[in-house]
Amino acid sequence: MTTTDAEIVLDHGTGAQLSHELVELIAATLGESYIGEMEDSATLTVEGDRIAMTTDSFVADPPFFGNGNIGKIAVCGTVNDLAVAGATPRYLTLGMILETGLPIANLVLALESIRDTALEAGVQIVCGDTKVVRKGEADQLYLNTAGVGVYARDPLRMAAVRPGDKVVLSGYLGNHTVHLLSIREGLGFESRVPSDCAPLNGMIDGVFAKAPTGSIRSMRDVTRGGLSAVLHEYSSMLGRAILVDEPAIPIQHETAMAADMLGINPLHCANEGCVAIFVTPDAVDDVLSALQAHKYGAHAAMIGEVTEREGAAVILRDSAGRESMLEELRGAELPRLC
Amino acid sequence: MTTTDAEIVLDHGTGAQLSHELVELIAATLGESYIGEMEDSATLTVEGDRIAMTTDSFVADPPFFGNGNIGKIAVCGTVNDLAVAGATPRYLTLGMILETGLPIANLVLALESIRDTALEAGVQIVCGDTKVVRKGEADQLYLNTAGVGVYARDPLRMAAVRPGDKVVLSGYLGNHTVHLLSIREGLGFESRVPSDCAPLNGMIDGVFAKAPTGSIRSMRDVTRGGLSAVLHEYSSMLGRAILVDEPAIPIQHETAMAADMLGINPLHCANEGCVAIFVTPDAVDDVLSALQAHKYGAHAAMIGEVTEREGAAVILRDSAGRESMLEELRGAELPRLC
Repeated sequence: MTTTDAEIVLDHGTGAQLSHELVELIAATLGESYIGEMEDSATLTVEGDRIAMTTDSFVADPPFFGNGNIGKIAVCGTVNDLAVAGATPRYLTLGMILETGLPIANLVLALESIRDTALEAGVQIVCGDTKVVRKGEADQLYLNTAGVGVYARDPLRMAAVRPGDKVVLSGYLGNHTVHLLSIREGLGFESRVPSDCAPLNGMIDGVFAKAPTGSIRSMRDVTRGGLSAVLHEYSSMLGRAILVDEPAIPIQHETAMAADMLGINPLHCANEGCVAIFVTPDAVDDVLSALQAHKYGAHAAMIGEVTEREGAAVILRDSAGRESMLEELRGAELPRLC
Repeated sequence: MTTTDAEIVLDHGTGAQLSHELVELIAATLGESYIGEMEDSATLTVEGDRIAMTTDSFVADPPFFGNGNIGKIAVCGTVNDLAVAGATPRYLTLGMILETGLPIANLVLALESIRDTALEAGVQIVCGDTKVVRKGEADQLYLNTAGVGVYARDPLRMAAVRPGDKVVLSGYLGNHTVHLLSIREGLGFESRVPSDCAPLNGMIDGVFAKAPTGSIRSMRDVTRGGLSAVLHEYSSMLGRAILVDEPAIPIQHETAMAADMLGINPLHCANEGCVAIFVTPDAVDDVLSALQAHKYGAHAAMIGEVTEREGAAVILRDSAGRESMLEELRGAELPRLC
């Protein structure tokens, strides 16, 4: 088998290189039964109509945090995966694995967040399933959501991105990770650095409404593996270097401070409410103004572009114009957060 | 809150009374965001077409057993939920929670079963997701599948069942449970009592093809909670007693012996390849012959009927004509198996 490790290690779950190896192994083993295309959502045909479908499992640590919980993440993750595919999220399923001893009050807290976030996102929970495992066989609760969306426009595809396209980021990097790590490590940053967890479909609708047709090439929500994983994925697929203007990256001051203390790089941090948009140069202003008009896009910025330079690489350019390579991590800097 | 326990206990996961309380709590808390109808699948409209959607999480213990593994169960469970709704299963998503230390070879074993079972059932895996948790935060691997199906006929509904309808069972009861328990307890029955885990959509298609239109009132796959849970659910919903002809229930001799040794009742045992069909009396012969013509229905039998007697009750009648009540369990006789 193609994976370099003989058993599952934590780094298989980080969104970095080992994760890719695992996904390739899975796709290869599923063979002809698997028709996924390694995008975050699949586009399917049902009775002649295209639908989008996606799934995500959620194992947040801690599952309950300052301004949210695993329930909110579980709705946002799947809603955002559908929205960045260009689809309108409609229906979610909800699978729950509950550890014996979980207080019912905590389950209710998660369910209330699921309800509120679903209502905000305009999606409906259509069916659910619960399994209970023994104490010590889960970390409080794990959730899975699968989602179905419909297409009001053509599905977006990674492969549509072209050299010259600009990269726009919808908001701060690193806040979800720093918020959770701050709680875990007792650093005291969590009140000043809230998780960015949010359903982005409304904001994305606003971008589509304002930008000229065809100017939005592709989008990806910046989750596990961070901006680094997203840019490496596009760069590898396109075979072109992506150049990032480092000072333009929106990072909250307290987040940068905390990341420094923790010895982590916000570019590798997981987010739960941030999207990277690949857009034609003429549409950048429209996209930025649409994002900034929305509560979840106040800190949006253009951060870089897809260059003509051949070969997969993500290059950071600092304020003095010096360039350095942003390496793809083999595993994580961090234990699991999402 | 309506649940009588303040924290999750194992019996919330058994398919018996405590499970119902949990499901009611979940539905109540999700409120208007939840449009499920407590059937195993939801029927949705996408661009004017009805689709069926369902989800299930899988936490089998042991995850790898004599004639199958959790991967096979994960495909069968969701395929069967769609098929008993009257839908044609089409697409599955696959979510995986992997414990650190899981041998890659075991993951591949599960994936190969997923592939083979998906091909047999004629469904495609459209997207997947993996999360990795620390050692001791899962039991090897947990899976979730969500499925989408299309309707070639009207969706089946529990509420369509009428007094006088007959209950047909497609195969042996209890084999999956006895197979897994035999491995867990070292009883040595597992080679003679294989798990019944199977995708039933092909067999169910055969039933629809042979039975007169409208004669198939409703179906339910007999999984967690066993035949008892299925019959209690229908009986409660209809407000009519269901009478079961005990000697007619298909139970393999070795299964009965093992269940006796284990002190469990096959009527409460989980199955993974058995369906209960509620059918008009005139169609019983067609349904039985369609089932018995299929490899998964060789032991099909008519086992009872929905009576005119008012009130929710499941009544067993033995070979001497004596009647006794089949109580609904509050929790499980057994630790989790599926």
